[in-house]
Amino acid sequence: MQPQCDLRGLWLLLLSLFLLLFEVARAGRPVVSCPAACLCASNILSCSKQQLPNVPHSLPSYTALLDLSHNNLSRLRAEWTPIRLTHLHSLLLSHNHLNFISSEAFSPVPNLRYLDLSSNQLRTLDEFLFSELQALEVLLLYNNHIVAVDRSAFDDMAQLQKLYLSQNQISRFPLELVKEGAKLPKLTLLDLSSNKLNKLPLPDLQKLPAWIKNGLYLHNNPLHCDCELYQLFSHWHYRQLSSVMDFQEDLYCMSSKKLHNVFNLSFLNCSEYKERAWEAHLGDNLTIKCDTKQQGMTKMWVTPSNERVLDEVANGTVTVSKDGSLHFRQVQVEDGGVYTCYAMGETFNETLSVELKVYNSTLHGHHDTLNTAYTTLVGCILSVVLVLIYLYLTPCRCWCRGVEKPSSHQGDSLSSSMLSTTPNHDPMAGGDKDDGFDRRVAFLEPAGPGQGQNGKLKPGNTLPVPEATGKGQRRMSDPESVSSVFSDTPIVV
Amino acid sequence: MQPQCDLRGLWLLLLSLFLLLFEVARAGRPVVSCPAACLCASNILSCSKQQLPNVPHSLPSYTALLDLSHNNLSRLRAEWTPIRLTHLHSLLLSHNHLNFISSEAFSPVPNLRYLDLSSNQLRTLDEFLFSELQALEVLLLYNNHIVAVDRSAFDDMAQLQKLYLSQNQISRFPLELVKEGAKLPKLTLLDLSSNKLNKLPLPDLQKLPAWIKNGLYLHNNPLHCDCELYQLFSHWHYRQLSSVMDFQEDLYCMSSKKLHNVFNLSFLNCSEYKERAWEAHLGDNLTIKCDTKQQGMTKMWVTPSNERVLDEVANGTVTVSKDGSLHFRQVQVEDGGVYTCYAMGETFNETLSVELKVYNSTLHGHHDTLNTAYTTLVGCILSVVLVLIYLYLTPCRCWCRGVEKPSSHQGDSLSSSMLSTTPNHDPMAGGDKDDGFDRRVAFLEPAGPGQGQNGKLKPGNTLPVPEATGKGQRRMSDPESVSSVFSDTPIVV
Repeated sequence: MQPQCDLRGLWLLLLSLFLLLFEVARAGRPVVSCPAACLCASNILSCSKQQLPNVPHSLPSYTALLDLSHNNLSRLRAEWTPIRLTHLHSLLLSHNHLNFISSEAFSPVPNLRYLDLSSNQLRTLDEFLFSELQALEVLLLYNNHIVAVDRSAFDDMAQLQKLYLSQNQISRFPLELVKEGAKLPKLTLLDLSSNKLNKLPLPDLQKLPAWIKNGLYLHNNPLHCDCELYQLFSHWHYRQLSSVMDFQEDLYCMSSKKLHNVFNLSFLNCSEYKERAWEAHLGDNLTIKCDTKQQGMTKMWVTPSNERVLDEVANGTVTVSKDGSLHFRQVQVEDGGVYTCYAMGETFNETLSVELKVYNSTLHGHHDTLNTAYTTLVGCILSVVLVLIYLYLTPCRCWCRGVEKPSSHQGDSLSSSMLSTTPNHDPMAGGDKDDGFDRRVAFLEPAGPGQGQNGKLKPGNTLPVPEATGKGQRRMSDPESVSSVFSDTPIVV
Repeated sequence: MQPQCDLRGLWLLLLSLFLLLFEVARAGRPVVSCPAACLCASNILSCSKQQLPNVPHSLPSYTALLDLSHNNLSRLRAEWTPIRLTHLHSLLLSHNHLNFISSEAFSPVPNLRYLDLSSNQLRTLDEFLFSELQALEVLLLYNNHIVAVDRSAFDDMAQLQKLYLSQNQISRFPLELVKEGAKLPKLTLLDLSSNKLNKLPLPDLQKLPAWIKNGLYLHNNPLHCDCELYQLFSHWHYRQLSSVMDFQEDLYCMSSKKLHNVFNLSFLNCSEYKERAWEAHLGDNLTIKCDTKQQGMTKMWVTPSNERVLDEVANGTVTVSKDGSLHFRQVQVEDGGVYTCYAMGETFNETLSVELKVYNSTLHGHHDTLNTAYTTLVGCILSVVLVLIYLYLTPCRCWCRGVEKPSSHQGDSLSSSMLSTTPNHDPMAGGDKDDGFDRRVAFLEPAGPGQGQNGKLKPGNTLPVPEATGKGQRRMSDPESVSSVFSDTPIVV
């Protein structure tokens, strides 16, 4: 049996040698080869539904799309990839068990444009978590357990266009992030639906341009029922904004621990929403924005007499600015009427009509002038006259009584009267509100290109109510006037 | 027991009524609600891994992304969605069992930009299958069983940028689709790796601009081993094109039923690849393209004396055209030297150097001038002189012999000599080759914007060999010259 044993030994030796060579050959290959669990199609690595507990090691440096969805990942550490993946533009991590993401996890993928973290178990979004992702355009975070969103979580994400946070436990969200020209200047879609939001900064929301409101999804939240909420969404419905039109059945609010549809609040007896005309006084300056549902549209205005507003029209009072707004310089009564803005976009066109009413000041000022600086001045002059009468025309009997009222008293009286000449800064006054005006200027629509989301071709959409910026603008019973200044301090819902 | 029975009946009646009301309430909701098997986040419908045998009915019209991956779909019929989904931009159908797609399946989704059909069981791509998808940018078809690709399958897909066909059974592919300015004008990535391609139209491939070759993945195919293949990929390697650099280990070819790495063909004794200088003759017109790896780069040329080439340089012979090509009008000996093209793109910059050698015709023409029209003319004049000598200076002894050679013979001789004055259109002649020139002009790089794929920042990349178009251009032993005209007829591999 000796020769047989020798043969067996020889076979084993050859087999070992073969395996060794095979391993050497494998080890000799560069780290750029396709990981065992993945399917590789040039720069796409599809490692979906492989029950992976960790990200595969040694990913090729040229990877452009990495699909790790439907696996068992629970933590995304800083060192999940040992090399920088500068070509990676899409990272799909949905349907895992992720409950932790290192604050440095996205450092190796600076050029990521699409990040899917939906259907995981994330609870918080920490400060600067996504700050490395300065090229990110779409971030999917729906169906997690997110309770808190740090105000700085989305810092430096200047390219972010779509942020999905639906189906979480969010009760407070820093809505100042979507303020035009704010931290997320390109954001056209923010999905906050199916969360736990109960209070919204309604006046601030109303002041946002239509292209942001169009993609601001707030349905399926236990919002507090009131007429202001009803008026807000009625306006959005009137403008046919996608965020309301597509989900009007799911727009709820809560009153007495019961959910009600926002458009069915008969128990509150709210007044019907009505689109109001723009009102101005003779000689006022006025700016009317063409508040389109899409960013960067080409805009054209037509006057009530069907003339196109160019740089300057015949009477010289109406001009169109670079951002497509209509400017009135010293508005005249004959400027009143319905102005139409035709906006042309990449995916759809839009037509907006705005009615302007110009009041002759003498007809209009009867009750309003009581609140103006003019009233204060009249009161002041009256006070001075009374003091003078008191000083010089008092009956001579006081003269006979001796020094009962010292002169110092008279001085006090005078000075207190004089102080009242300072004009009252009544916050409800209808005069110039420079402060409010200056802050409103911050919402001018940028002229740069961009595009809306959820925009729909609705040809018959001839809708008014653009945002106003300008001296002398007035609205009757405007819900926005309750808090017309967009606070610069962070606003949380 | 009678009262108890009555109570039970009442309960049952109430329950039935309640269920009926519930059903009515459900039925009363519009069809836009979220399908039962899906997770809905505003305009995203995620119906992944639900073992669905069919696409859910009544999808909301606002759907923008529909994820149906990891299901049991086997057929995509024309009526898979009863309504048009005009907002749908991404449709994910990967990891199903799709073996049939109706030619009308994509009619309801005309604005689709991303279609994932990877990891299915598709066998053929029929005529006009994707023709409705005129906005499609990315099409994933990897890991199917595709054997045949109809030449018209991708007709009218003017926006297609990336086409993944890896891991199929393709043995013939109509590569004329990627010809610059052809049916897929924006295609920057075509993944044909891991298929059954064995023959490629190498001269045509070599003539493609670098931005197409950069994203043309051909690894893991049983290509036929020869020196031309080696030279082709050596050139791509020299240019550091992603398609070769990222997969050089997987670039195989087949010889004697064995697979060899393309860069290890020692048994063929191919000559080493060498980058050649551009050669021109004194007075030639010449065009040198700045053949960048990315489309739509901003290009700038610098002369050997480090002057920037603007519209016209000092001596007036060198100009830069709108597409960034370098033009020489009546090239001079002093124009010779190394020209450098600096190209700036969105993601990376590129530097290309091109050497130009200009030969003085008198030094150069010793053996070549024999082939020119000049030679023909000299020969012709000599013939005429000889005929005249024969006619007038023959010795008088012929006179005495009588009429042995009729005059008609002399006329024949003259006319045949005169005919030869027509210049010879020798295909190998180095003179004007208008025909070839005109066809080459078809490969001028368009000046419109666009972007490459797989482009990498390689700062030290100072690489020559741009494509030539122009009169009088020459290359020594140029492998391209074997078939220098890109055929207009379909080319299949």
